[in-house]
Amino acid sequence: MEVGFLGLGIMGKAMATNLLRHGFRVTVWNRTLSKCQELVALGATVGETPAAVVAKCKFTIAMLSDPRAALSVVFDKDGVLEQIGEGKGYVDMSTVDAETSCKISEAIKQKGGAFVEAPVSGSKKPAEDGQLVVLAAGDKALYDDMVPAFDVLGKKSFFLGEIGNGAKMKLVVNMIMGSVMNAFSEGLCLADESGLSPQTLLDVLDLGGIANPMFKMKGPSMLQGSYNPAFPLKHMQKDMRLALSLGDENAVAMPVAAAANEAFKKARSLGLGDQDFSAVHEVLKGAGGSGQA
Amino acid sequence: MEVGFLGLGIMGKAMATNLLRHGFRVTVWNRTLSKCQELVALGATVGETPAAVVAKCKFTIAMLSDPRAALSVVFDKDGVLEQIGEGKGYVDMSTVDAETSCKISEAIKQKGGAFVEAPVSGSKKPAEDGQLVVLAAGDKALYDDMVPAFDVLGKKSFFLGEIGNGAKMKLVVNMIMGSVMNAFSEGLCLADESGLSPQTLLDVLDLGGIANPMFKMKGPSMLQGSYNPAFPLKHMQKDMRLALSLGDENAVAMPVAAAANEAFKKARSLGLGDQDFSAVHEVLKGAGGSGQA
Amino acid sequence: MEVGFLGLGIMGKAMATNLLRHGFRVTVWNRTLSKCQELVALGATVGETPAAVVAKCKFTIAMLSDPRAALSVVFDKDGVLEQIGEGKGYVDMSTVDAETSCKISEAIKQKGGAFVEAPVSGSKKPAEDGQLVVLAAGDKALYDDMVPAFDVLGKKSFFLGEIGNGAKMKLVVNMIMGSVMNAFSEGLCLADESGLSPQTLLDVLDLGGIANPMFKMKGPSMLQGSYNPAFPLKHMQKDMRLALSLGDENAVAMPVAAAANEAFKKARSLGLGDQDFSAVHEVLKGAGGSGQA
Amino acid sequence: MEVGFLGLGIMGKAMATNLLRHGFRVTVWNRTLSKCQELVALGATVGETPAAVVAKCKFTIAMLSDPRAALSVVFDKDGVLEQIGEGKGYVDMSTVDAETSCKISEAIKQKGGAFVEAPVSGSKKPAEDGQLVVLAAGDKALYDDMVPAFDVLGKKSFFLGEIGNGAKMKLVVNMIMGSVMNAFSEGLCLADESGLSPQTLLDVLDLGGIANPMFKMKGPSMLQGSYNPAFPLKHMQKDMRLALSLGDENAVAMPVAAAANEAFKKARSLGLGDQDFSAVHEVLKGAGGSGQA
Repeated sequence: MEVGFLGLGIMGKAMATNLLRHGFRVTVWNRTLSKCQELVALGATVGETPAAVVAKCKFTIAMLSDPRAALSVVFDKDGVLEQIGEGKGYVDMSTVDAETSCKISEAIKQKGGAFVEAPVSGSKKPAEDGQLVVLAAGDKALYDDMVPAFDVLGKKSFFLGEIGNGAKMKLVVNMIMGSVMNAFSEGLCLADESGLSPQTLLDVLDLGGIANPMFKMKGPSMLQGSYNPAFPLKHMQKDMRLALSLGDENAVAMPVAAAANEAFKKARSLGLGDQDFSAVHEVLKGAGGSGQA
Repeated sequence: MEVGFLGLGIMGKAMATNLLRHGFRVTVWNRTLSKCQELVALGATVGETPAAVVAKCKFTIAMLSDPRAALSVVFDKDGVLEQIGEGKGYVDMSTVDAETSCKISEAIKQKGGAFVEAPVSGSKKPAEDGQLVVLAAGDKALYDDMVPAFDVLGKKSFFLGEIGNGAKMKLVVNMIMGSVMNAFSEGLCLADESGLSPQTLLDVLDLGGIANPMFKMKGPSMLQGSYNPAFPLKHMQKDMRLALSLGDENAVAMPVAAAANEAFKKARSLGLGDQDFSAVHEVLKGAGGSGQA
Repeated sequence: MEVGFLGLGIMGKAMATNLLRHGFRVTVWNRTLSKCQELVALGATVGETPAAVVAKCKFTIAMLSDPRAALSVVFDKDGVLEQIGEGKGYVDMSTVDAETSCKISEAIKQKGGAFVEAPVSGSKKPAEDGQLVVLAAGDKALYDDMVPAFDVLGKKSFFLGEIGNGAKMKLVVNMIMGSVMNAFSEGLCLADESGLSPQTLLDVLDLGGIANPMFKMKGPSMLQGSYNPAFPLKHMQKDMRLALSLGDENAVAMPVAAAANEAFKKARSLGLGDQDFSAVHEVLKGAGGSGQA
Repeated sequence: MEVGFLGLGIMGKAMATNLLRHGFRVTVWNRTLSKCQELVALGATVGETPAAVVAKCKFTIAMLSDPRAALSVVFDKDGVLEQIGEGKGYVDMSTVDAETSCKISEAIKQKGGAFVEAPVSGSKKPAEDGQLVVLAAGDKALYDDMVPAFDVLGKKSFFLGEIGNGAKMKLVVNMIMGSVMNAFSEGLCLADESGLSPQTLLDVLDLGGIANPMFKMKGPSMLQGSYNPAFPLKHMQKDMRLALSLGDENAVAMPVAAAANEAFKKARSLGLGDQDFSAVHEVLKGAGGSGQA
């Protein structure tokens, strides 16, 4: 199977590499073309422009850094739109908001092309290991065509219906994650202030019904007050805000998520926005002792 | 090793059986003595009264249904207190509040005996499989003596320091669990009302960083509105209340747990107290549609 | 002093009437021109179009029903923009969002005119009695010129600085009001369920440090479950959402407002959006009895 | 009318003085007897002990500093219990918990006496001005007998039914007050961080539907970060905790009060427990700037 691949950042490079390793013929493009050489060594062909890639390939995947880049690759000169059309498919796996996704979708459909948005859950390591989770939505026929590629890139792919649903699903998952992080942090603080060992709490949690990878991975560094940004707090708070807005549109009351969101906002006000989202722990930690009234 | 065992309810019977199977000599007692027969078939001896068991055994374990029963077995006529003393140890594995535990501890220490409280995390199945988690506190030397028994009963035991810490650790764990349940339920509701499949959300969650046994076990039945009481909501709410009180004593602000607690209270007011604690989902589910203002 | 007045709805009519009664010469316009007759009887002149009013008067006040109407009167054919210019001032007293206000402000300044936004706090009765509170922002010189008119229309006017601040001040005030309403309702429920008379609570509150007109006015009808819409719940919830967004922009954590907002959302989901915002009481009222665990 | 009066602290002295000024014959007692002299100058008689006062007077009022003092005056040697009996009434106007009140009530009723609890709302100034609010409960006949005294001491008295209801009513009122304080503080912070003048917000609020004495009195000092303890934060937080417990007993969900309570707890953890309860403002104030993600 032949695919185009636009964008060779950390994620894109790992993904294109996996495709090549599994026998796909891949035509790559990157804004800084020199980044293509490593892929060429693995058997990739280079396309001069996004338009050139689309002209050559029936299916083109994009993995770009942000909404601006995602729009630019489609709408700018030598962009995807110039060559997309009947019989061709475009799959954007970048993490973008629903609005950006809709704009791209409409432009491509107007040209007769097919479009799928397919943001992923998982970062560098899962990308390298082909262990991403693909949250796809849009043109079902194109999705079906892409399943062999998704099977190489991820451990599982989902088709979620209409455009925008991929972004929404990510918001819901992140919202739960943000609330769970707060619950976890509150428990660590309560243990600590009540004379229990927070480290033992981690051990006990890891043996119980809510044991999960996040507690295991982030717990120990939280106890040390270390918050290396795997997922920056300000992005988590933005996702919680957007999830609460989504709830607002649909009249869904979510008091726990709302309380968690306020804690993340407090963390932002304390200058922790660029730390990992587990840094909300700093907000919940007391300033130390003061017995009951 | 020889141990006494008081209380052959669902949990106690499974635990005593495990001890017998692993070569312990066990003298059992139960308020309804006929319940002892099954254990006798497996090699147990019967003690006529708690006092008789303690008289015979260096170490005695109790697994009783509630604080009232735990106190009665110790303080009533023919109770533990009549025979406990220098060189003997008593281990109460029942789930009781810190106050009850302290009362028992003081009485036994006054007689010269040693005491360990050791509530467990896990219910019937883990008890049968020797997969409980033991949260022990009190006399460290007695705890060390009991490790061979704890190793048979549980997959892991913890020594948490002074009397009361076992009960506190359970509260902290349950508080986190209660908040996580609310976060989970809010996410399921948001997915549903936003046009996403809650079932797909379960699948996506199960592949991600907060995948955990509780989501896997309770998610599907929550989507069906079925809340078979594994852990009754009113007990979860009581634990959240007690955990918040513990936070109050130590000036720990826990806004997410507080919001979750109010949702559980709302659930109680709707008559859901005897359902599983996942029935808080009924509170969070909207009454359906009403677009944004 | 001569002023133009655009918009003779419930509010506008009362305000124009007050200006006439206090000796202002007023040229009125209304989309349905027949509504002008009542004002003519009091001495008003009629303008055929917004443009005609602006052509005639140095200062023109508008009081329109919503952002759409506010934009239409300025930008449509025969609108304010056609005649505004150097030496003329336009004062929009409608309640609109900051974005609408900015759009109007920029267009008028580009033509050389001066602009003041001046939303009011207070409804029909205060408008008739000249007891509004005017929250003005924008061109300070124009504000100063308008003080004689504001003194007639309101009991107090404030100049709040740059365009948008009028709208923001209303949001902050409404946010506090929404939270206070929730606190009030929770107290009424707690009294009721605890065997105290909610009516007596109203009496006690009215004698104490937080006695306020809202408790006095809305308390009795809330106890009867009657929520005649003075300020619809869906509008209050929208304002709370916007205030929380404003807090988000500025990293201000507001946990109480967030909890109140979720209660209003719950009320919307129960179909109470068109009732008075005091209908949040229906959410907080329990379904009745269920003793403690 | 003749009354006994036990306790001449700040409140008691002001109250006994008012009774004397309105023609009551008053027999006073205070633990430090020298404090009685000022009252004697106004016409009071002195009783040597609480028992002596009760022996002399048909009705005795107590105004003591805390539950311990309230119990001591009744149960200790030479206490109220020694002389109370058929045909005599005892009225405790101290602020005590429901349990203390019940204990006193039962002891007095067993001796054949009548008892009314009558905590007041209002502090020094209202006590001096006879402007307290009396929240009475217990023996209705005794309450009726006492109305002439209550009329002198307060601007209004309420009879609330069974013993304990006076304390409960105070809790409900204080809970609302605590939540309202948080709403107020959040609004002041939002104004400040959004570029609006918090002082202007105070002015606008004072002209609107939720204008109240507390905003007027505490707002200006809060803006200056000054929190002179009129009502200490730790006491307010204790009352919120007790009110939430009362809600728990009766399954009343109160999410706004719960969020407010957590803010007060946070304030306690920051060492603000002895400041005025308006010091919760320090928790809500951000640490300053950090733009939106």
